[in-house]
Amino acid sequence: MKLIGITGMPGSGKSAITKLAEKYKIVVVSMGDVVRYETLKQGMPLNPENVGNTAVKLREIYGKEAIAVPCLNYVNEKYNNEDFVIIEGIRSIYEVNYIKKHAELDIIAIHSSPKTRFERLSGRNREDDSNDWNTFVERDERELNFSIGRVISLADYMVVNEGNYMDFVNDLENTFKKIINVN
Amino acid sequence: MKLIGITGMPGSGKSAITKLAEKYKIVVVSMGDVVRYETLKQGMPLNPENVGNTAVKLREIYGKEAIAVPCLNYVNEKYNNEDFVIIEGIRSIYEVNYIKKHAELDIIAIHSSPKTRFERLSGRNREDDSNDWNTFVERDERELNFSIGRVISLADYMVVNEGNYMDFVNDLENTFKKIINVN
Repeated sequence: MKLIGITGMPGSGKSAITKLAEKYKIVVVSMGDVVRYETLKQGMPLNPENVGNTAVKLREIYGKEAIAVPCLNYVNEKYNNEDFVIIEGIRSIYEVNYIKKHAELDIIAIHSSPKTRFERLSGRNREDDSNDWNTFVERDERELNFSIGRVISLADYMVVNEGNYMDFVNDLENTFKKIINVN
Repeated sequence: MKLIGITGMPGSGKSAITKLAEKYKIVVVSMGDVVRYETLKQGMPLNPENVGNTAVKLREIYGKEAIAVPCLNYVNEKYNNEDFVIIEGIRSIYEVNYIKKHAELDIIAIHSSPKTRFERLSGRNREDDSNDWNTFVERDERELNFSIGRVISLADYMVVNEGNYMDFVNDLENTFKKIINVN
């Protein structure tokens, strides 16, 4: 089995992978799925509090490599027969390194400029709404503090999502096809 | 004046900017130029020891924002009449933030996968020469510790250098022309 990790800053367009996954019938696992699965495994009902507590507990148990450890378990338990599994929401280089040590993993990073991402996320074309801009920068900062900058810089594939959306989806699909060996 | 900063992991192909700079007659300033200039300003002859000591001293004086502070001074003193100046070798987000606060700066990041960069730098096609691979990873690590991952992830433009070299140079030139408003 080969894992395909999708990463990118907020608003870069990572969700485009969902449509491609459907088209090529490839399972998508999000880090959130893993936490919910772990919550259920502990016999707790799924509600925001339990899921939140499980996330904290996983980080206590596995340190910087959480949620990679339960993620790999989850994939192996549930999707052992799949040739490819997409993992959404990878943002820590520790998680990447852990998974790469135990499985085959290719990382696709999606890049858009901060200006473009801000416009997408805020639905506006003006950077002078400083409150929104600060919120945007803080959100970026949180992701970067998880070491997503390292994941992006060391990505196996980089797809730029800056101009025409269909061009981007096309580039992403071509990258995707390279990984899953479809011509 | 607008500054154009070039960043990218080792072996990504940053030096391609030199030819473009010549073609469009745009000055290129490297962080090394700045340190040499500061060395001379202090009346010291240019030798590796003096240049090294100056770099250390600049970091002591300006902290994380070195070498951005003397770099901006250098550009303003020497190239005040230029419309555009390229700055090579930006690798710290603190330097980027400092320069953006005081001048107009667009960052172009160049991305190649670790595998491709390793092959370029080692001139080999095998990752199993573990000694070389470790050296490569350590060099990456040093750059990432300077926060180059943040500079890359927050770049205004991303150019991928993965396949055909002329395609890459072409993409880089198109990006470059967008910034300097040439059609």
